[in-house]
Amino acid sequence: MESLLSPSMLRQKIRRNQFSSNTSGYCSGYVQANLCILPQQQAHEFLQFCQLNPKPCPLIGMSATPGDYQIPSLGKDIDLRTDVPQYRIFEYGRPIAQVCDIRDYWRNDLVAFVLGCSFSFEEALLADGLEVRNLTEGVNVPMYRSSIQCQPAGTFSGNMVVSMRPFKAADAIRAIQICSRFPAVHGAPVHFGDSSEIGIQHLNQPDFGDAVTIRAKEHPVFWACGVTPQVAVEQSKPPFCITHAPGAMLVTDQLNSRLAIM
Amino acid sequence: MESLLSPSMLRQKIRRNQFSSNTSGYCSGYVQANLCILPQQQAHEFLQFCQLNPKPCPLIGMSATPGDYQIPSLGKDIDLRTDVPQYRIFEYGRPIAQVCDIRDYWRNDLVAFVLGCSFSFEEALLADGLEVRNLTEGVNVPMYRSSIQCQPAGTFSGNMVVSMRPFKAADAIRAIQICSRFPAVHGAPVHFGDSSEIGIQHLNQPDFGDAVTIRAKEHPVFWACGVTPQVAVEQSKPPFCITHAPGAMLVTDQLNSRLAIM
Repeated sequence: MESLLSPSMLRQKIRRNQFSSNTSGYCSGYVQANLCILPQQQAHEFLQFCQLNPKPCPLIGMSATPGDYQIPSLGKDIDLRTDVPQYRIFEYGRPIAQVCDIRDYWRNDLVAFVLGCSFSFEEALLADGLEVRNLTEGVNVPMYRSSIQCQPAGTFSGNMVVSMRPFKAADAIRAIQICSRFPAVHGAPVHFGDSSEIGIQHLNQPDFGDAVTIRAKEHPVFWACGVTPQVAVEQSKPPFCITHAPGAMLVTDQLNSRLAIM
Repeated sequence: MESLLSPSMLRQKIRRNQFSSNTSGYCSGYVQANLCILPQQQAHEFLQFCQLNPKPCPLIGMSATPGDYQIPSLGKDIDLRTDVPQYRIFEYGRPIAQVCDIRDYWRNDLVAFVLGCSFSFEEALLADGLEVRNLTEGVNVPMYRSSIQCQPAGTFSGNMVVSMRPFKAADAIRAIQICSRFPAVHGAPVHFGDSSEIGIQHLNQPDFGDAVTIRAKEHPVFWACGVTPQVAVEQSKPPFCITHAPGAMLVTDQLNSRLAIM
């Protein structure tokens, strides 16, 4: 069964171009991550942006030196040029290509940033018996451009993108407790209830992903989202940037449970 | 200044009948506690009730043997017969007296239970910069008989009494995080939002304590409350029972911060 592939086996398939789709549901138990690659010239400011905004941009790994496409702490054999199913190439903030391999685009001045992703905390919520609506409905989580401003760092700035999952009050309290243990994957929610308080007018019209059902007595609960750095890249328009394609993540050898701070 | 009295000094004043009022605001940093004293015959079931309902009835100390009125783990010199400013005496669930000293009522078969109290977590919320409305408004926290059923133990049963503090969403999330560290003083909230979901029709008409202002964008957040065991005693009607009077707590030598599990 595909879902029983080890992270290393899945990465090998991705590397051989035998797998190019979304990684959701694969390699249960292991950390999947967002990827953002920038030239050295922008990398320092982006690193600062991550450090100032740890909830949307939780850094779990980066190139040891410019040009380094390996992240041995997250998987000995990881090659960031080939091990993500789909990459997006940006020039001056505009997408110019979507590819399965970035060896032709790689440069010696590129610095890769690996950021935690909500898949990890969704697994912890499920393991606690909570229902995660986007998973139940088999869609991408709804994501919205909020009015919450990130701390700017040099040319990088922008508002926080948030993901939303609906819960009844008691389950929302439990979700807050569980996610507080996982600051490396966005941590506790940033808001619940009236979405207009954070600049979101229509919950049924997400800016990214898909709308989900919100039932009676349920509160929309909002988490900082890993799409935030992509929006910051859109706005700061660096000459060159590579990211993963949404949902097609870097699958690592690190266990989700090891991200828990307690 | 009175508020700088040490717990031991305040207990001495109480013991000499020089202090018989509410203890709120005294001995900042130290655990204050609820008291419930029952005959040995009911004590086993009451202990079971506490163990089954740790959120409303968080046990932090009890008589080592029947008749023992000391709790050295909470304060070497504590004498539970004299060290609480006001006691209430119940027979078959009905209050028959309110006194400053229970030496005349003490019996060799009595077992004392000391339960955590919300003063401890309110202090932690204040220390984090949150506003606790009942403290700001200088009133007792509003408390309500909810429809949440406690787990029954023998003759002890009843619905949970909850206290309510209003917070904006982001502060409510922070309050949930902070209180999760303090399971010995009611822990995380049990509900927020629509109070009718837990059987409370009128927030401005609390069953105990005083109403507080709820402002725009604020959510009422509900915690399990230490009045719950008193309601269970009312309902189970044990032949004899002694409790503290609401607000007139046992002041201990234990530091609030030591109740934090992490």
